[in-house]
Amino acid sequence: MFLYTKNFDEQKARAMAGLRKALEEGKVDGDIIPLLDKINSLENYFTTSSCSGRISVMEMPDFGDKVNSVWLGKWHREVSVEEVLEAIGRHEKGQLWFLVRSPILHVAARTMEDAVRLLNLAIGLGFKYSNIKSVSHKKLLVEIRSTERMDVPLGKDGELWVDEAYIERIVNIANDQLRRFKGKLKRLEEEIEKLSNITQALP
Amino acid sequence: MFLYTKNFDEQKARAMAGLRKALEEGKVDGDIIPLLDKINSLENYFTTSSCSGRISVMEMPDFGDKVNSVWLGKWHREVSVEEVLEAIGRHEKGQLWFLVRSPILHVAARTMEDAVRLLNLAIGLGFKYSNIKSVSHKKLLVEIRSTERMDVPLGKDGELWVDEAYIERIVNIANDQLRRFKGKLKRLEEEIEKLSNITQALP
Repeated sequence: MFLYTKNFDEQKARAMAGLRKALEEGKVDGDIIPLLDKINSLENYFTTSSCSGRISVMEMPDFGDKVNSVWLGKWHREVSVEEVLEAIGRHEKGQLWFLVRSPILHVAARTMEDAVRLLNLAIGLGFKYSNIKSVSHKKLLVEIRSTERMDVPLGKDGELWVDEAYIERIVNIANDQLRRFKGKLKRLEEEIEKLSNITQALP
Repeated sequence: MFLYTKNFDEQKARAMAGLRKALEEGKVDGDIIPLLDKINSLENYFTTSSCSGRISVMEMPDFGDKVNSVWLGKWHREVSVEEVLEAIGRHEKGQLWFLVRSPILHVAARTMEDAVRLLNLAIGLGFKYSNIKSVSHKKLLVEIRSTERMDVPLGKDGELWVDEAYIERIVNIANDQLRRFKGKLKRLEEEIEKLSNITQALP
């Protein structure tokens, strides 16, 4: 059975080259960069993808059809009612949704032991939906994820089903959720260095 | 490292006794029982908890405060607008939410190899959020979970933020999601016996 990832160091080198490129192109959420740096400075881990969590307005032909979905607005920070209304104003057709998504980090681990240590740290810091996403000779992948989420249908084919007062209310709730998960990210950034001690005992 | 669960067979016997008790008390969602039986008939797995997926109306003092949350209505089947409106009518205080949750099954596996085989089967059948939830000498736990979900704020402290036409719309979307995840459960029930072949090669 696979207790470790084959060619971990080569994979990490490739992933780090990819990350540098993404950083140069501005494709990485700014406020998560210090956390990514800390994880990638650890010998037994590297990040493969990340999102710092977001609030968005999305148009999709059918629920779950991501291929044909269009973001009318997307923010990795607190958002104002005006910004959300402006995004809604761009809606034309399909289902219109207001969404909140928790941060997601995918982190490759050298060994199953490393994967479990990261998993348990993340869960302990409030990232309760964290899990081991995939296990193979090629990769041991930990997903760090929290519980905050909203999926609110707003309208369809240009018709709006809710009023402005409702938008204001859900924007307030969304900003609450965003502040909560940003706080968790901050704590993870503070605590992640604990994983540099690779001799720590396991349960 | 832990490649297998200690005392798997004793744990399974205890879990099966617990399941029989839950079944007698009517605490198991009816439509998921044949699937649980099939999983538990496999030598290297047993179920520890399950939900067949649900639509609900919930009142909670603060988002995420599950301890003080109250279900005003909960259905593991398609729901009518009238039933949802009746549940909403019972709302008194706190945040009022309309929720959809995908099925969740927690399945203990004998070895990491067994866990990964179940994980990959579930992902392949559309349970895309499936993962390995915990790993320890005590238990290897696979979580089977799908992507369907809704989290719609409806009101607060007795005040309703949306109208009846909106409720009708989100009930339709919720029923669509429910039909979709029930179909996935059916396919899982049909395919789960593949895991009885324990000599299958791994990637």
